[in-house]
Amino acid sequence: MDKKEFKVTPYEVSGDVDYDKLIKEFGVTKIDEKLIARIKKHAKEVHPMLSRGVFFAHRDMNWLLDEYEKGNKFFLYTGRGPSGKIQLGHLQTWHFTKWLQDKFGVELWFQFTDDEKFLFKDKSYEEIQQWTKDNMLDVIAVGFDPKKTHFLIDTKHAGLMYPEAIKFAKKITYSTVKAAFGFNDSMNIGSIFYTSMQAVPAILPSVLKGKNIPCLIPLAIDQDPHFRVARDVYPKLNYYKPSIIHGMFLPPLTGTEGKMSSSEESSAIFSTDSPKEVENKIKKYAFSGGKDTLEEHRKLGGNPDIDVSFQYLRMFFEPDDKRLKKIHDDYKSGKLLSGELKAILIEKVNSFLAEHQKNREKAKKQIDKFIFKLT
Amino acid sequence: MDKKEFKVTPYEVSGDVDYDKLIKEFGVTKIDEKLIARIKKHAKEVHPMLSRGVFFAHRDMNWLLDEYEKGNKFFLYTGRGPSGKIQLGHLQTWHFTKWLQDKFGVELWFQFTDDEKFLFKDKSYEEIQQWTKDNMLDVIAVGFDPKKTHFLIDTKHAGLMYPEAIKFAKKITYSTVKAAFGFNDSMNIGSIFYTSMQAVPAILPSVLKGKNIPCLIPLAIDQDPHFRVARDVYPKLNYYKPSIIHGMFLPPLTGTEGKMSSSEESSAIFSTDSPKEVENKIKKYAFSGGKDTLEEHRKLGGNPDIDVSFQYLRMFFEPDDKRLKKIHDDYKSGKLLSGELKAILIEKVNSFLAEHQKNREKAKKQIDKFIFKLT
Repeated sequence: MDKKEFKVTPYEVSGDVDYDKLIKEFGVTKIDEKLIARIKKHAKEVHPMLSRGVFFAHRDMNWLLDEYEKGNKFFLYTGRGPSGKIQLGHLQTWHFTKWLQDKFGVELWFQFTDDEKFLFKDKSYEEIQQWTKDNMLDVIAVGFDPKKTHFLIDTKHAGLMYPEAIKFAKKITYSTVKAAFGFNDSMNIGSIFYTSMQAVPAILPSVLKGKNIPCLIPLAIDQDPHFRVARDVYPKLNYYKPSIIHGMFLPPLTGTEGKMSSSEESSAIFSTDSPKEVENKIKKYAFSGGKDTLEEHRKLGGNPDIDVSFQYLRMFFEPDDKRLKKIHDDYKSGKLLSGELKAILIEKVNSFLAEHQKNREKAKKQIDKFIFKLT
Repeated sequence: MDKKEFKVTPYEVSGDVDYDKLIKEFGVTKIDEKLIARIKKHAKEVHPMLSRGVFFAHRDMNWLLDEYEKGNKFFLYTGRGPSGKIQLGHLQTWHFTKWLQDKFGVELWFQFTDDEKFLFKDKSYEEIQQWTKDNMLDVIAVGFDPKKTHFLIDTKHAGLMYPEAIKFAKKITYSTVKAAFGFNDSMNIGSIFYTSMQAVPAILPSVLKGKNIPCLIPLAIDQDPHFRVARDVYPKLNYYKPSIIHGMFLPPLTGTEGKMSSSEESSAIFSTDSPKEVENKIKKYAFSGGKDTLEEHRKLGGNPDIDVSFQYLRMFFEPDDKRLKKIHDDYKSGKLLSGELKAILIEKVNSFLAEHQKNREKAKKQIDKFIFKLT
């Protein structure tokens, strides 16, 4: 793959993603200072993932805030395809989602797309069910408000979701999904239908309450094609188009191309990794922007832009702008060595995971509170 | 369309159907005397639709009877796509199904494919729901045993069916459904997925009871492609392949090509037609095998093979073989005139519908007994 080539679909992220190009291709809007200021007006603060451009693009956020300011509260919708362990890239999006929930005081509908993962992966139905249960623990551990958070599991809630999904499906052709997802005729017919199920949670609260409620979807941008496909259908069914806020991918340990992936052990730090595993992975795999020798590094400095450890701090683990700037400048000047930078990250990730894993244990008794029940 | 050309898929029946050719194309087996004798051994009688070759082909009926004789009872599964009024062609298949239920003392799972009709027809979700309720009355009016008959409505029972449907869907490619149903890329993605939902009732009792139960599907042969597509999947999911018994189409009033269709008023007699409507339709539209003039008819006789009124008597309304033979011979010799033949049919259909409509009224209070509930 050419340096300039990259691919971003829900089913493949590869290459060196050019986010500005993606904004044009997907037809989304870059988040500007004005929008950030507008969010700040309500949130009273700006999340570092917003100010640092990690959440960098959106659809219809201004409309959503117009409605919010009129007293028409939105709900949040995000999700997880449960086919493996949770890694830091997932947690990044969910922590930002939690911030939105806290600051705006809104409901979150969280979808577990177990049907999708069963249909797209070479894994058994039972294995996917086990990952669903496992992944729920991580979602709960993020700290979402149990009173305001509802888990939807596609197979478990199919009685509610399938009748709505076919309303989307009726208005989406095979040609459309073929183009949006890069499918071919040897795809199974479930995977072709699936995108209709992902469209549903954005309207489900409206269906249940019998009135139109705005929806905001925080997601990593590879999921955008699902909503691009369904986008024109929402108004045809008399629902609002959901607003979307798009995040960049947390890069894999091994470099800044593609995204952190659960299917490659060496590329990811998992939510259940031990402190020793985290240390070893970062020391062994985390791509360094430092120079080859100590002397050279001291003289020429490192490159934080391509240094994965620095990027993790910037994108997730060092919320303090001043401290981040000092790390950046020290690394760039050569004052801070790669090993020292890695040590900072190791400490940050391990203290984050210690807290996460503690919450993850407690979550085992909380699952039932989160699963949506029709009352 | 050439005289020799015909098309039979769940979504189109046209032309002069050559059933022998269809047997080869679909890879089904013609029902022979030996199989009829074997059925008779258990049923104590032979239904005229069997002896007269109206139910003319099958898949794996001998295996089904082997199992039955070992004490491994089967269940019946058939269904209805609720997008319009019920006509005589539907009732024909269901009366044969009732005979099977009575004679073998077995359960019937009856599927209402409301999702299919919503996805394939230019009708609203609400309209399809109304037809579902309406059509249930006709199914109940046939006289199925309420203790042994379970209605499945795809959208209503999606919680049960969708998780099973995706197991079929995962093993069926778009190429396969494209070939089997004549689909193209402008089809909506729900219609492409749908066949997986039709596969499910053949295993649902096995799923619910946690053991493999043989299944027999009586159907008009245009529905066979759904099961041809799913056929190889059943054993992969560790279920028996369902056995099938195939019926011919009750021809439209207007001639012996195609099938009676609810969407053409002039081609069909509906379950709710008044005696006067039945009389008018048969007099006006029923294609006659008689000669143009009374003199010619008396001299040369009529042709019962192409006479729709005679075919209705043979295929459905005159169970008595002797009486049918007399009508046949008298018509062929010219003794019986077309008008007289039509009068016989009018009387038969009206007395049949009087009974059906009485039962249909009573059925309004029985729907709830028939809808399957998980207990």
